[in-house]
Amino acid sequence: MERTLGELAHLVEGELLGDPEFKITGVAGLEEAQSNEISFVVGPKYASKAHQTKAGALIVPPKLQAFEKPLIISENPYLGFAKILKLFAQEQRTTVLGVSTKAHLGANVALGDEVSIHPQVYIGNNTMVGDRVTLHPGVYVGSDVYIGDDTVLCPNATLLARCIIGKRVIIHSGTVVGSDGFGFVQDGKNHFKIPQVGIVQIDDDVEIGANCTIDRGTMGRTWIQRGVKIDNLVQVAHNVVVGEDSIIIAQVGISGSTKIGENVILAGQVGVTGHLEIGDNVRVGAQSGIAKSIPAGQTVSGSPAIDHRDWLKNCHIVSRLP
Amino acid sequence: MERTLGELAHLVEGELLGDPEFKITGVAGLEEAQSNEISFVVGPKYASKAHQTKAGALIVPPKLQAFEKPLIISENPYLGFAKILKLFAQEQRTTVLGVSTKAHLGANVALGDEVSIHPQVYIGNNTMVGDRVTLHPGVYVGSDVYIGDDTVLCPNATLLARCIIGKRVIIHSGTVVGSDGFGFVQDGKNHFKIPQVGIVQIDDDVEIGANCTIDRGTMGRTWIQRGVKIDNLVQVAHNVVVGEDSIIIAQVGISGSTKIGENVILAGQVGVTGHLEIGDNVRVGAQSGIAKSIPAGQTVSGSPAIDHRDWLKNCHIVSRLP
Amino acid sequence: MERTLGELAHLVEGELLGDPEFKITGVAGLEEAQSNEISFVVGPKYASKAHQTKAGALIVPPKLQAFEKPLIISENPYLGFAKILKLFAQEQRTTVLGVSTKAHLGANVALGDEVSIHPQVYIGNNTMVGDRVTLHPGVYVGSDVYIGDDTVLCPNATLLARCIIGKRVIIHSGTVVGSDGFGFVQDGKNHFKIPQVGIVQIDDDVEIGANCTIDRGTMGRTWIQRGVKIDNLVQVAHNVVVGEDSIIIAQVGISGSTKIGENVILAGQVGVTGHLEIGDNVRVGAQSGIAKSIPAGQTVSGSPAIDHRDWLKNCHIVSRLP
Repeated sequence: MERTLGELAHLVEGELLGDPEFKITGVAGLEEAQSNEISFVVGPKYASKAHQTKAGALIVPPKLQAFEKPLIISENPYLGFAKILKLFAQEQRTTVLGVSTKAHLGANVALGDEVSIHPQVYIGNNTMVGDRVTLHPGVYVGSDVYIGDDTVLCPNATLLARCIIGKRVIIHSGTVVGSDGFGFVQDGKNHFKIPQVGIVQIDDDVEIGANCTIDRGTMGRTWIQRGVKIDNLVQVAHNVVVGEDSIIIAQVGISGSTKIGENVILAGQVGVTGHLEIGDNVRVGAQSGIAKSIPAGQTVSGSPAIDHRDWLKNCHIVSRLP
Repeated sequence: MERTLGELAHLVEGELLGDPEFKITGVAGLEEAQSNEISFVVGPKYASKAHQTKAGALIVPPKLQAFEKPLIISENPYLGFAKILKLFAQEQRTTVLGVSTKAHLGANVALGDEVSIHPQVYIGNNTMVGDRVTLHPGVYVGSDVYIGDDTVLCPNATLLARCIIGKRVIIHSGTVVGSDGFGFVQDGKNHFKIPQVGIVQIDDDVEIGANCTIDRGTMGRTWIQRGVKIDNLVQVAHNVVVGEDSIIIAQVGISGSTKIGENVILAGQVGVTGHLEIGDNVRVGAQSGIAKSIPAGQTVSGSPAIDHRDWLKNCHIVSRLP
Repeated sequence: MERTLGELAHLVEGELLGDPEFKITGVAGLEEAQSNEISFVVGPKYASKAHQTKAGALIVPPKLQAFEKPLIISENPYLGFAKILKLFAQEQRTTVLGVSTKAHLGANVALGDEVSIHPQVYIGNNTMVGDRVTLHPGVYVGSDVYIGDDTVLCPNATLLARCIIGKRVIIHSGTVVGSDGFGFVQDGKNHFKIPQVGIVQIDDDVEIGANCTIDRGTMGRTWIQRGVKIDNLVQVAHNVVVGEDSIIIAQVGISGSTKIGENVILAGQVGVTGHLEIGDNVRVGAQSGIAKSIPAGQTVSGSPAIDHRDWLKNCHIVSRLP
């Protein structure tokens, strides 16, 4: 495929300095880009590399226009780059597959238009699958599930009974949505299993990485709200709520019934105990352990976590104790 | 379905105050329960909610009987609730499936009565499957495996060759039982792989969460004893022994050849190094790092872990160092 | 099968004291070995057990020859043991399967000689599979993948499009290779997904444990170099490079674009932030958090990590603060 610079400038809502008919066939980093490709410069730090690039055109911020090639001026060159990358990547996508004869569909499954149900997919009974949904090989979808339009389940993902998945959701390979919450009550010496009869609800535009586990509610629901992005190997326990647009990095664990606010960032390997409230816009440093609720807007670190600046001071003091 | 209050009181071994013929059709939390459902009160903290509930009946402890509706008096209302929940959940279960023609069975597989072998299951050669076992879609069972009665393997679980699984075991989706232990010996500059020829033995009434890894013994066995409950994303290395009724929370890692006693609790994200002995009834706080053996009955926290009360003191002192 | 002591001494490059025609039928630990099996002694610590063993022969180091049975003298008895174990384990392996009619092969798949493609395997289009490769049931291999000779993918492993896998690689069950890197750019309030168009390259003789996640490069590649051994539940983010022969223990997480040198050891549950350089031969203690680059040869511990000896001192001082 190819696109003109004029089309690309329009896509990224940038101002074009150069020939709008110039043909672009791809997008790449400064060092790899060829003369028919476009690259990008996010700031002065990359100016010298940008002067040496073979790229045919550049996306640049308003203050960095001194390059002798066609330029698209953008307030956010990295976003522009991502949008062009998405455009070229989509063109390579495979066509609509329909329903493979090697997939297993239960009774009373309702399929939307233009779905791609690959070989070795299993779908239980009474499940509804929206338009343009892709279920890759090895995907398991239980009974009474609802999957919204344009959602993608990657190979070997598991989506268990009665869960509700929104539109444009991506669930990566090996992830399990709707496993039983971890709940037992003592019966003398034995642990008596509390049946986990709730569900998982995942709202629109959520992405969940590979090999995560999102447990269903004991009763009620575990709820991942709109726009949340979850990295790999993350554990979300029963009845947790993760607020809109929050970011959860790899290997985080969130214990049962905890409520994470909106726009929260939990860095890698953070652990959060159960029944807490983490306020909006909270940031938590990597490997921190959260044992108390945190008011909105705070940045914390450490295990147990404290104010991030205090934690930095403590680390420094402890390192000088000898 | 429906049950009479008399039947439910008998099930939970409680004393009934009210009409034994009163009909109950379900069980729910205090806020969600309807007039034909039963709910429960664990203590005075929930008394005001209990006074407002629409539930048709309540399970209450002996000291909380001042409610104007039918009551079941129980020493452990939460256990009673769990038992009734299980009763109603079981009624909804699907019927016995038999063996799907879309499953693959190897040579010389012995199947018990009333098994449910779903489509896209793979079973290797010489494997024995007990009565009423359920193997969900995408389950892999290797050769020479033994699976006891009433055991359930959830979708996309993997159970590798020669492992031995007891009765009433539940293995959740994505979990791998019997992967190779991590063992290498230096051969000059290279790491020479030590063949892992042992097995995993899982005893009766064990439950293992989603996306866990339980490695086989290098030689001999990795052994999960009766009644152990393991949460999601837990790593159990080769030749580990986990004693009866122990509880292992999400994302814990246990290194090779360590022995965990009975009734131990390892909280989330704990790490235990290899070749240790953790005594009976030990409790380990979340994110702790265990580098030494721990005598029975201790409670420890921190990384490296120390006595839990000392750890609390240290956290307090360090926080005041500035 | 059986082998003579002479053959085994030749295999492990050891000196034989005893009858070279003595028949050995297996290998086992000192306590389990029977009179027709061989066992091994790594040092004086095990001498008393060795005097009581029923083993028919022993592999011993040069300084430990006082046993009244046939001996193989070896500088590294444990390596010798592993080599003999491998010999006996290989004999038990199943024969070449060919391509199951229950596997799904895409268009234009090129298969080498003597492959074993099991039932319920999925292979995409244009993928090349080397000689003697084994793809176990439930394995997903995407399109445009290259798999080198003698590589094994265990049941339910997932290998996504365009990845390149070397020779003699082992990828254990549930592991996902080539999932999207975790990359987003702010677009006003929303997180705009950066298409992940790179690949994963895994070189010869790498072994990756169960339920790991190895993300593809955003652009370019994530690169696991020759001889690297990775344990279970490890997260390797986009564009990470892991140098030759490095060892990564269970539940480690490595963030994007970090470069790990050669012969590095990352112990269990270590976290490494992004864009760092970890030098050759660095050792990192369990649960450490690495937030800065580390020069070659250092040993560090703690979160944040410091010199290992300083960390030991600090732990001791803090424990005495009360």
